[in-house]
Amino acid sequence: MKKSGLTEHDSLLKQLIEYRRELHMYPETSMKEYETTKRIKRWLEEEEIKILDAGLEVGAIAEIKGEEEGPTIALRSDIDALPIGERTNLPYASKIKNVMHACGHDFHTASMIGAAILLQRRKKELKGTVRVIFQPGEEIAEGAKQIIKAGGLDGVSAIFGMHNKPDLPVGTVGVREGALMAAVDRFKIEIYGVGGHAGIPNNTIDAVVVAGQLISALQTIVSRNLSAFDNAVVSITKLEAGNTWNVIADHAILEGTVRVFQKEARGKIPQLMKQITEGIVSAFGATSKFNWYPSVTCVDNSPLFTEIVKRTGEELGYAVVEAEQSPAGEDFAYYQELIPGYFVWIGVDGQHDWHHPSFTLNEEALLVAANYFSNLSVNVLNHLSKSNNQKLTVN
Amino acid sequence: MKKSGLTEHDSLLKQLIEYRRELHMYPETSMKEYETTKRIKRWLEEEEIKILDAGLEVGAIAEIKGEEEGPTIALRSDIDALPIGERTNLPYASKIKNVMHACGHDFHTASMIGAAILLQRRKKELKGTVRVIFQPGEEIAEGAKQIIKAGGLDGVSAIFGMHNKPDLPVGTVGVREGALMAAVDRFKIEIYGVGGHAGIPNNTIDAVVVAGQLISALQTIVSRNLSAFDNAVVSITKLEAGNTWNVIADHAILEGTVRVFQKEARGKIPQLMKQITEGIVSAFGATSKFNWYPSVTCVDNSPLFTEIVKRTGEELGYAVVEAEQSPAGEDFAYYQELIPGYFVWIGVDGQHDWHHPSFTLNEEALLVAANYFSNLSVNVLNHLSKSNNQKLTVN
Amino acid sequence: MKKSGLTEHDSLLKQLIEYRRELHMYPETSMKEYETTKRIKRWLEEEEIKILDAGLEVGAIAEIKGEEEGPTIALRSDIDALPIGERTNLPYASKIKNVMHACGHDFHTASMIGAAILLQRRKKELKGTVRVIFQPGEEIAEGAKQIIKAGGLDGVSAIFGMHNKPDLPVGTVGVREGALMAAVDRFKIEIYGVGGHAGIPNNTIDAVVVAGQLISALQTIVSRNLSAFDNAVVSITKLEAGNTWNVIADHAILEGTVRVFQKEARGKIPQLMKQITEGIVSAFGATSKFNWYPSVTCVDNSPLFTEIVKRTGEELGYAVVEAEQSPAGEDFAYYQELIPGYFVWIGVDGQHDWHHPSFTLNEEALLVAANYFSNLSVNVLNHLSKSNNQKLTVN
Amino acid sequence: MKKSGLTEHDSLLKQLIEYRRELHMYPETSMKEYETTKRIKRWLEEEEIKILDAGLEVGAIAEIKGEEEGPTIALRSDIDALPIGERTNLPYASKIKNVMHACGHDFHTASMIGAAILLQRRKKELKGTVRVIFQPGEEIAEGAKQIIKAGGLDGVSAIFGMHNKPDLPVGTVGVREGALMAAVDRFKIEIYGVGGHAGIPNNTIDAVVVAGQLISALQTIVSRNLSAFDNAVVSITKLEAGNTWNVIADHAILEGTVRVFQKEARGKIPQLMKQITEGIVSAFGATSKFNWYPSVTCVDNSPLFTEIVKRTGEELGYAVVEAEQSPAGEDFAYYQELIPGYFVWIGVDGQHDWHHPSFTLNEEALLVAANYFSNLSVNVLNHLSKSNNQKLTVN
Repeated sequence: MKKSGLTEHDSLLKQLIEYRRELHMYPETSMKEYETTKRIKRWLEEEEIKILDAGLEVGAIAEIKGEEEGPTIALRSDIDALPIGERTNLPYASKIKNVMHACGHDFHTASMIGAAILLQRRKKELKGTVRVIFQPGEEIAEGAKQIIKAGGLDGVSAIFGMHNKPDLPVGTVGVREGALMAAVDRFKIEIYGVGGHAGIPNNTIDAVVVAGQLISALQTIVSRNLSAFDNAVVSITKLEAGNTWNVIADHAILEGTVRVFQKEARGKIPQLMKQITEGIVSAFGATSKFNWYPSVTCVDNSPLFTEIVKRTGEELGYAVVEAEQSPAGEDFAYYQELIPGYFVWIGVDGQHDWHHPSFTLNEEALLVAANYFSNLSVNVLNHLSKSNNQKLTVN
Repeated sequence: MKKSGLTEHDSLLKQLIEYRRELHMYPETSMKEYETTKRIKRWLEEEEIKILDAGLEVGAIAEIKGEEEGPTIALRSDIDALPIGERTNLPYASKIKNVMHACGHDFHTASMIGAAILLQRRKKELKGTVRVIFQPGEEIAEGAKQIIKAGGLDGVSAIFGMHNKPDLPVGTVGVREGALMAAVDRFKIEIYGVGGHAGIPNNTIDAVVVAGQLISALQTIVSRNLSAFDNAVVSITKLEAGNTWNVIADHAILEGTVRVFQKEARGKIPQLMKQITEGIVSAFGATSKFNWYPSVTCVDNSPLFTEIVKRTGEELGYAVVEAEQSPAGEDFAYYQELIPGYFVWIGVDGQHDWHHPSFTLNEEALLVAANYFSNLSVNVLNHLSKSNNQKLTVN
Repeated sequence: MKKSGLTEHDSLLKQLIEYRRELHMYPETSMKEYETTKRIKRWLEEEEIKILDAGLEVGAIAEIKGEEEGPTIALRSDIDALPIGERTNLPYASKIKNVMHACGHDFHTASMIGAAILLQRRKKELKGTVRVIFQPGEEIAEGAKQIIKAGGLDGVSAIFGMHNKPDLPVGTVGVREGALMAAVDRFKIEIYGVGGHAGIPNNTIDAVVVAGQLISALQTIVSRNLSAFDNAVVSITKLEAGNTWNVIADHAILEGTVRVFQKEARGKIPQLMKQITEGIVSAFGATSKFNWYPSVTCVDNSPLFTEIVKRTGEELGYAVVEAEQSPAGEDFAYYQELIPGYFVWIGVDGQHDWHHPSFTLNEEALLVAANYFSNLSVNVLNHLSKSNNQKLTVN
Repeated sequence: MKKSGLTEHDSLLKQLIEYRRELHMYPETSMKEYETTKRIKRWLEEEEIKILDAGLEVGAIAEIKGEEEGPTIALRSDIDALPIGERTNLPYASKIKNVMHACGHDFHTASMIGAAILLQRRKKELKGTVRVIFQPGEEIAEGAKQIIKAGGLDGVSAIFGMHNKPDLPVGTVGVREGALMAAVDRFKIEIYGVGGHAGIPNNTIDAVVVAGQLISALQTIVSRNLSAFDNAVVSITKLEAGNTWNVIADHAILEGTVRVFQKEARGKIPQLMKQITEGIVSAFGATSKFNWYPSVTCVDNSPLFTEIVKRTGEELGYAVVEAEQSPAGEDFAYYQELIPGYFVWIGVDGQHDWHHPSFTLNEEALLVAANYFSNLSVNVLNHLSKSNNQKLTVN
């Protein structure tokens, strides 16, 4: 009956809020989510949801097997917090100094436990298996790699995940086919000149002057070398040269990051950066070392699921909107390199943006997300069964 | 007698003023000083001063042989005018459209004729020979080369010259040992990129952007690569790139000049410009052609004559001041590469600076200069005779 | 009958090819399309298609009235050629020196005459009126303004147009909702310094050095001030400073263009350019004048017609593909500022890109385009009639 | 007798070497020269040289009164060491960790004690009084100010000092009229932008990009705003911006120094730096704080003493050479702002340059310097007495 249904949901919301607040009070940073892992496992066990033995030091993988045979799909939540001191004054604010769930992974975790609980109750409808992955270390792009290494994706046909979105209202799902979040890379450019007396520049190669020219030259990658339709950012975020006021610096260091949404541009940018760096330093007789640290690729949503991802939201009466792309990165991308997947925004009507010390969100959205991923799982398994459980591929 | 002496001088001044005004009214540009040459020769012949047959198309060389045997020295005046339209309103302003003695070479010419006249009258005092060179084409650094080619310096031990100086009062001689006027070189840098649609920069190599970076980079030659004690200027004076508003330029041209007073810096600068150009263009994937056109070297006054050059001025009751260096060039420098020489400023209390369409000077200075170079010739020949007419060398 | 239908079409293709080749041989540049206008009118008259008396000096407007009452829609072709010398060796290559249909407006014109002919034969099916606009002066963004001024859009509910696309095969229609072609603006930046002697920079304000810094600084608009999701290009295409090698330039001129697809960015860019210019010139004590010449806005396709535009292609068995955006501009945009419209790519399998002297296309596409716009007109009028001929608005 | 004279000198050299080595072993940094002061006073007292009670915490002033009445002149030595760890392996290397007489002030001190000893023996010849100033804190430009405040220059007509010069042989005196050592100033430029997410530059004002442009722009002060004859250096020696790789820096700091030899240029440079900074930051919407810390003026040798300074060297059989200018600073300049003075190079045939951890010198030069300043004092007092002890002024 509808009435009891509502009651049931109210009670689930209350439960998820409790989970989320406990996680919020005891945040743990990336790959150190020991207590968080214990909490997740305890809560799953209380619901008699099966936990796979994946040999993970932190993080957990649960599994709900439907009554009907069928393919396996995965839901994924990240669980780590950030080294940020909370400034919210909430009664359940972080009790751990300088650690805070400022990116809302507590919300993701509680929501996905909610989805697991709902799915556990709907085993009859499930035409296959749903694996629920509680992934550690997203903020440092480490956890997805470990989940994959631990076999978390073995036998999985497709994967689904989300990020809360503070600027979308509760009850909204943001959907976008193709690139949703940026590929993120890091660089460090070392310029080596010749130091010396600040009054005798002619006996030196001034690393500061080379750095100045290089900073300007690197702007041209985005302004000239990429097309108007490439969506890329090259940011030099850190500069360091010299120790004192009367000695010309013998070296300078530039560090920063590149964000990009097109694969071709991603390949081109480090080559251009190297070429520009080498040209500029040679102009001044200096030398350089160009260090490139590739990190996560683009979160790239598979066209296979666009329709089902939208329909699921609509069936629940949610607002389904075109998702804005984000220049932030997500190691969910690593899963999508192996199997098709879809990552959506869940509106949480928050205060402040991600990573802000006063970041908050509306907890009503916990049930929205739980329902969404529960229904999505049912729908996707239905769909895959119809299509004869064929092997899906990422192009 | 003093009185008649004065009268004599007054009359000479009147004569030199007439010469100078005639030259001023009929200026001729570099290497086209046909009428000027005729006038000079006529005036010299009227004074029965010997003219050497040097086979020059324009310009003339006179010679006054003293009664006593001795070495030969040279006085030099330049005789060409500039392609500038005069704006002085003087009664004797240029009658030739867009040609003007805006650098006062008419003054130099008339003064040196005056010196020749005086020396002709003092043959008895002369311990050797004075050659008076009326050189064409100074403004384009061509005339001195031709004089040398014509044998004008053959057998000459030392050479002396002057430039009028508008900011010094009449009756002043500016003297400076060593570098007085700059070595002057010219450059042209061609940058080759790839042109294309102004909306598709990614298919181009934008020559304008390369030019912009190169302009900034070239500033560091003076600011960083030269010492505080090098006196050099690198000026990019002309820029050209592109033809229209909607096509990215495929090439850019930078032209300019370098002025320098130190030999070592003069050698270093084109190498640095080339290195910087090649580095910058390679940073952007462009190519370049670096063209260097060396012109006159430094006017570099020999320490052999500093004392005598000063003393001559003092004997005449002139003010002898330390000469300010000038970043302009003078092809008198070519003579100084072969034999020792000295170049001085003669104060003319002028209005406006060289090359200004309203440039004027005080003609009283004609006699000052004539007397100065007459006495200087007598003094130098005296001095050289004492030193046994030894071969002088330029170091 | 199908067979005669084919024959009919074959015969129409032959006719359109003849029209196109005649236009191609006698190209006329923007706003001088006198003979072109005569040809268009003659051909229309031969088909007994009504020509409106719009008072245009060049260009023409035809009208086909359906048997059923209904709204009016417009089809638009541009008709002008470019000042480019043809290098194709085609038997029907341009006979006019240095003028060529290098952008394929001859194709557009002949195709739209084809659509008009087809519509004339289908008056029975037409639930309203189709106006066919043959617009002059597209290349200089002048013609659309004149058509509007002449009342060409009066009473028109929606407008449709096309551009040939050489990189799409014949039988392909490229469709994209929203921004398809760039807003195009033009700028001219004048920098005023103080000129002077190339060896005495300290008495000058060197406009070349200011220009160099400004070129680099302007790169930061795209690299820093716009988001990764803005699709904008700022190109400085022309540089001019100085006249000679030994005088420091007293002013410098930078010209170029801005291409942008987002309205907000379009407003922001000239403000940023002005701010950057003023800051840079003030750094060096120079002054500036910033001139901004706005031209066409974005070709912005209305979501009202996306479905119908796609469906029309599919019904004809054409390939309907997602259209790539173009950084070129189109004055079709001026119509879309007033009434909703849609602009599509028609594949022509061409050699070389637009504006290339060897640009060619496959003439089979003439009939593809004629059929497409004929069917589209029928479909759109059907659709608008159903929706009670309501007034459409542009947001 | 000559022989005993030599012996006497040999014995003095031995004594000065002992002093110098003791000072060398126990160096003290600027304004902390407590033990150094005690040693100097003890050695002066042992020679029965009068010490003035100037109330100095560190440093000392001795005075030798000639038998004849006359003006007072001063000799000056600096006495402080540097925070540098010695790496010479000398038996008398510094015993104080990370403190070293790496600039040879120990040499200056021992030499001037030598001069004082010699003058004490020559009181009969002295036509006036010689004050010998042992100044602390030269390296931080603090000591001269304190000596002046303590009245050290009261009644003094002229002052003389020296610096050892490693690249000149022992027995050489370097002399130059006018500017010898640079005016030294320090600056710190703070650029304030708006920090933010490294992927969202459009919400920031990137302080790194502003810093890059500013570095290039500041090069133009020397390359364009100063004349070829200004001898100035502007060095940015330290750069700092940002803390990490994924956050755009909200501020950047540039520090450095300016060296200049011409008063007019010294006034102009900070104004230009401020103007350039303000223009550049405003171009990018950033703000700035320009901090200027003026330090010592130019060491500017008075033409009053050029002849006597040279003659004194020649009389002693030393090589008197034209001194090269140095871009280093010296707080001896503060004395020269108040009374005429002369500062010379004393050749010490050293290994390595000033401030190098392996800096050494040839101690034979101690006696050269002692003799020089002893004789110079006698000569100058002779000269001043002749000129009726007139009041000297600095122009």
